[in-house]
Amino acid sequence: MIKVAIIGASGYAGAELVSILLKHPEVLLTKLFVSEKSEDKYKKINSLYGSLYNKTDLILEPLPAAEKLKDDFKAIDAVFLATDHKVSHDIAPILYDAGCAVFDLSGAYRLKNLSAYEKYYGFKHENLELLNKAVYSLCEIASHDAIKNTRMLSIPGCYTTSAELPLIPLCREKLLDADFAPVINSVSGVSGAGRKAKLSNSFCEVSLNAYNIFKHRHLPEIEEYAGTKVIFNPHLGSFKRGILTTITAKLSAGVDASNVLSVFLKYYENKPLVRIKNELPKLQDVINQPYCDIGFTVSEDGYIVICSAIDNLQKGAAAQAVQTLNLHFDFNETTALI
Amino acid sequence: MIKVAIIGASGYAGAELVSILLKHPEVLLTKLFVSEKSEDKYKKINSLYGSLYNKTDLILEPLPAAEKLKDDFKAIDAVFLATDHKVSHDIAPILYDAGCAVFDLSGAYRLKNLSAYEKYYGFKHENLELLNKAVYSLCEIASHDAIKNTRMLSIPGCYTTSAELPLIPLCREKLLDADFAPVINSVSGVSGAGRKAKLSNSFCEVSLNAYNIFKHRHLPEIEEYAGTKVIFNPHLGSFKRGILTTITAKLSAGVDASNVLSVFLKYYENKPLVRIKNELPKLQDVINQPYCDIGFTVSEDGYIVICSAIDNLQKGAAAQAVQTLNLHFDFNETTALI
Amino acid sequence: MIKVAIIGASGYAGAELVSILLKHPEVLLTKLFVSEKSEDKYKKINSLYGSLYNKTDLILEPLPAAEKLKDDFKAIDAVFLATDHKVSHDIAPILYDAGCAVFDLSGAYRLKNLSAYEKYYGFKHENLELLNKAVYSLCEIASHDAIKNTRMLSIPGCYTTSAELPLIPLCREKLLDADFAPVINSVSGVSGAGRKAKLSNSFCEVSLNAYNIFKHRHLPEIEEYAGTKVIFNPHLGSFKRGILTTITAKLSAGVDASNVLSVFLKYYENKPLVRIKNELPKLQDVINQPYCDIGFTVSEDGYIVICSAIDNLQKGAAAQAVQTLNLHFDFNETTALI
Amino acid sequence: MIKVAIIGASGYAGAELVSILLKHPEVLLTKLFVSEKSEDKYKKINSLYGSLYNKTDLILEPLPAAEKLKDDFKAIDAVFLATDHKVSHDIAPILYDAGCAVFDLSGAYRLKNLSAYEKYYGFKHENLELLNKAVYSLCEIASHDAIKNTRMLSIPGCYTTSAELPLIPLCREKLLDADFAPVINSVSGVSGAGRKAKLSNSFCEVSLNAYNIFKHRHLPEIEEYAGTKVIFNPHLGSFKRGILTTITAKLSAGVDASNVLSVFLKYYENKPLVRIKNELPKLQDVINQPYCDIGFTVSEDGYIVICSAIDNLQKGAAAQAVQTLNLHFDFNETTALI
Repeated sequence: MIKVAIIGASGYAGAELVSILLKHPEVLLTKLFVSEKSEDKYKKINSLYGSLYNKTDLILEPLPAAEKLKDDFKAIDAVFLATDHKVSHDIAPILYDAGCAVFDLSGAYRLKNLSAYEKYYGFKHENLELLNKAVYSLCEIASHDAIKNTRMLSIPGCYTTSAELPLIPLCREKLLDADFAPVINSVSGVSGAGRKAKLSNSFCEVSLNAYNIFKHRHLPEIEEYAGTKVIFNPHLGSFKRGILTTITAKLSAGVDASNVLSVFLKYYENKPLVRIKNELPKLQDVINQPYCDIGFTVSEDGYIVICSAIDNLQKGAAAQAVQTLNLHFDFNETTALI
Repeated sequence: MIKVAIIGASGYAGAELVSILLKHPEVLLTKLFVSEKSEDKYKKINSLYGSLYNKTDLILEPLPAAEKLKDDFKAIDAVFLATDHKVSHDIAPILYDAGCAVFDLSGAYRLKNLSAYEKYYGFKHENLELLNKAVYSLCEIASHDAIKNTRMLSIPGCYTTSAELPLIPLCREKLLDADFAPVINSVSGVSGAGRKAKLSNSFCEVSLNAYNIFKHRHLPEIEEYAGTKVIFNPHLGSFKRGILTTITAKLSAGVDASNVLSVFLKYYENKPLVRIKNELPKLQDVINQPYCDIGFTVSEDGYIVICSAIDNLQKGAAAQAVQTLNLHFDFNETTALI
Repeated sequence: MIKVAIIGASGYAGAELVSILLKHPEVLLTKLFVSEKSEDKYKKINSLYGSLYNKTDLILEPLPAAEKLKDDFKAIDAVFLATDHKVSHDIAPILYDAGCAVFDLSGAYRLKNLSAYEKYYGFKHENLELLNKAVYSLCEIASHDAIKNTRMLSIPGCYTTSAELPLIPLCREKLLDADFAPVINSVSGVSGAGRKAKLSNSFCEVSLNAYNIFKHRHLPEIEEYAGTKVIFNPHLGSFKRGILTTITAKLSAGVDASNVLSVFLKYYENKPLVRIKNELPKLQDVINQPYCDIGFTVSEDGYIVICSAIDNLQKGAAAQAVQTLNLHFDFNETTALI
Repeated sequence: MIKVAIIGASGYAGAELVSILLKHPEVLLTKLFVSEKSEDKYKKINSLYGSLYNKTDLILEPLPAAEKLKDDFKAIDAVFLATDHKVSHDIAPILYDAGCAVFDLSGAYRLKNLSAYEKYYGFKHENLELLNKAVYSLCEIASHDAIKNTRMLSIPGCYTTSAELPLIPLCREKLLDADFAPVINSVSGVSGAGRKAKLSNSFCEVSLNAYNIFKHRHLPEIEEYAGTKVIFNPHLGSFKRGILTTITAKLSAGVDASNVLSVFLKYYENKPLVRIKNELPKLQDVINQPYCDIGFTVSEDGYIVICSAIDNLQKGAAAQAVQTLNLHFDFNETTALI
């Protein structure tokens, strides 16, 4: 049994982590934290999430100040950060120094390209040593040895997971025409915007619309890991959970559907949480599930459209974080997930 | 042409009024106001409601202070108050004194029972003279002469409209067993909670739940106008607009379905905006429509279940307010509505 | 390990059973059947339910004819019937005689009142011997010994589960005024209507409406097991899963909220799948969960409104069926469920 | 007053036509027809669409056989065909010969490219003379003289309207790089699939998924009228009405956002039903409205993403058909629409 804490447990990804980790036979969930300023401090998490009633009585404790943090976390084996990017940036080094394995769901340690932090996140990265140790844990692509051998794990973003799982194999194997920038259209459920009272997330205001085109924070992340320029069109849809991503690209000369399928099978045939389908995926097949479903179709004149579906709070956040924990601690990869 | 202003135009009922009144051939919509403290002041209403783009360029002006209000409204023939109860309570006398016909969508002038204001609204009514002049304009029940002969019109609440239109005829004609308090179950769309960023209205938080049972503000209103004790169970549902109300009651001895139908036809056969159906109504038949649909079924042992459906922003607010304006100014009752 | 088959596996309750049973460490799911006339016969269930992809490759086999059935099921320990009432009525005796423990999700063996089958189900019950052996497995109310000691288990209906769990304790303990028939308003998600192409279930046709008032099949079931006349108002809502039930009743003289709470705790404090809450339940807290959440509120003049929430496919069908299997075979009551 | 009939009035586009035409002061809606084989024949349309109750008592008559058709329609000034493509193909010539102005909402007379009918619609076009007379009435692009001068009007498809209104100006004015095929991602509400009981349209089956990529019938239509190869990715979304289309393209060298805006204003500034917005459109701003809303954003490196939003049953079908009627008969372009 390992001792696990979650910082930022009151948000949707945090609560999803709680829900998953309570089912994990090797995990003892010992502490939940929220920001010192949070209105939810000292509440039971099950008073925020009625679904957790009867499952846990854990309290949302206010996060101790930085100077106390290291001591407080010495007894913790693994800590999940479901916190704001800047908070993760600041506290991850302290937790790492306390000896924890750190699973950061924010964007603070995802990018190796330092200028992107300033352009897309609005802060200058100041923890380069830890950033250097961070492994980007897109679990089906990352080296499992690398995940085991670091204690600083950076969990990919939700949109990026849905885009990179289809794109990376095709880019690495040079199946795509580099002159045609892949166009990534994604529609996300509202939980992706977090548990906050904002007019834009208010029930009557949500319908379907694109936003942050050409400037979303997941754009540099996709480009860095897929290794290609892309056009990324995020949309907010009127559903609670899930992301459907539709990628349009051009195949390299001579490449056909069977080549694409071969590459997908090469990368994913033995991966329990990526399902290559012979039809285009439906969003609801992955809701409340840890899978990424992928399907594709190829035109007579060499274009390809690939669709992927994930639950943004599962494979796009909490489930991938627990999958990473499983790999890091050498548990079964899917424990507590399926 | 009459000159019309709306106070509280930035909310959902206010915007619905704008949308209806722009279609009204006898109305010149001249001014829109919001609270002096509103973040929306000086914005165009079409920047808040994209649906109004190209239809109006009216600005949301901050409401003048009380001392200026009377002069500013002397040129206005009719003013709609889509404001908080206390705001309506305070400014209605000034607007009335300015000579306006006042159409108040709040609860401030609905009840004759003064103690109910303190118990359910939290304030003591201090404008009894105007309250005395106020006519409760449930348009199919109220006297049209009374509506014409006052300049203080109080528009019924949304839940109450859906409950009173079925209940009042049955109660007045003594078709219901007085020993069995009618049970009123209503499910309202989220727009009923107003255009505010609140966690409880946030997209991911809304599913279906009852709230404010035994203490909702519409309870004393229903009881006063239906003239019977009732049990009122309001619910919030995961849809934007509409109220479906299901009323269970016991028939007086000897009353059967044909008596009920006769009474409904007596009250509503010639009313253009109440539709008596020979089946139970579906919510979507009234969405974006000014109607109240009513259907019912009777058991072998003398119980009756009546269902009614309205759009809470139309017959439950803005459409009934405009219907009242039409009656007051002797326009066709349904102008701008169908 | 016990060998388990599901008949009627292609429907929503059947697929939910598959999904749960695949997680059950003591169950070997060996066979899935559909009607001999089903278009789905010989298909993999994961081609109907993409969520099951990678989890099972089981085929939907056509159900053998009655004369073969007994032999075919001799090797099966437990069989779930997610079939039409009449089909269950006909084949349950054969499966019972084959030695299976039969878990029937239909209504065919729920009622002891024979005339109700003719009135509400349209057939005359002809298997009285087996009906006599059938135990109605509302798991928190039924005797666990009775569940262990029969091989004919009748799983309660979805609406009835949501109504009986709150009503039975209050009726048995005489907390309700018998002169006021409890009014049960329920709103069900569309999955309750089954996986069939019908116009009434078509996406654009569903909004919110009452149906089958005074004649729904679950009415005699509630009345038989709660032991009281009730008025039952079922509604179809525009969501996929879940039932929210709102029950209005009158308390016996002298009964107050603390008496009600005491009775609920007496019945359910140690029951892992019923959660007594100190607030009114929200539908989404139970979606994809095996719980029944119950909350209530009491008026100053002696009325009570109780709300309960279940997932119609879980506690209202498949989860309660597996809970029954767990009790029957002496597994942990919540194995595979939480 | 002109006399108008609708063939195929029982479907969603047909009913939307009824609803609009009942508000049209110059139109006398005289006859509604359904297929001779329809189960709905001889029913009142308000029994299918409760929203029409009290508005019309028109009956859905079975369509007379071809040999009677011409005589029956001699007294009709305008007929709308909301029928299957092949039915429209077959009966349009008869109605045209009867002297009617024919407004065909099907695809049967949209394409000049004959081979596309065989490839995408599965029939060979055999009415070339009438096809030749047909004017494709994308109202903001088509010549209004042409619309006046023919009696065969072909109403554009829903997806195509949402794609062509943004694309045609940019293509005609050579603002787009011809080497980068525009990628058109559209999400449509379920009403686009028609009023039929199909499992794929069943409430519980709909979530979000792409379909018919590279082979949808609207693909050749877009390519013919926009004059460019495109990639068209249609999706089905879990909402009733509306289409949001997101188009990604590359600008020609030297073209910037101000050029794009100028072109849009040149084409649409004086068009009452196209709204060029300075932000990306939201789907709900056009629901139940006749508008097409268009917004766009341009990247630093010369890509453009344009979003458009329409109501598929309004600007994508019935409203555009009535707009065409208004232009043909020289009524005000927006009569009965806003």
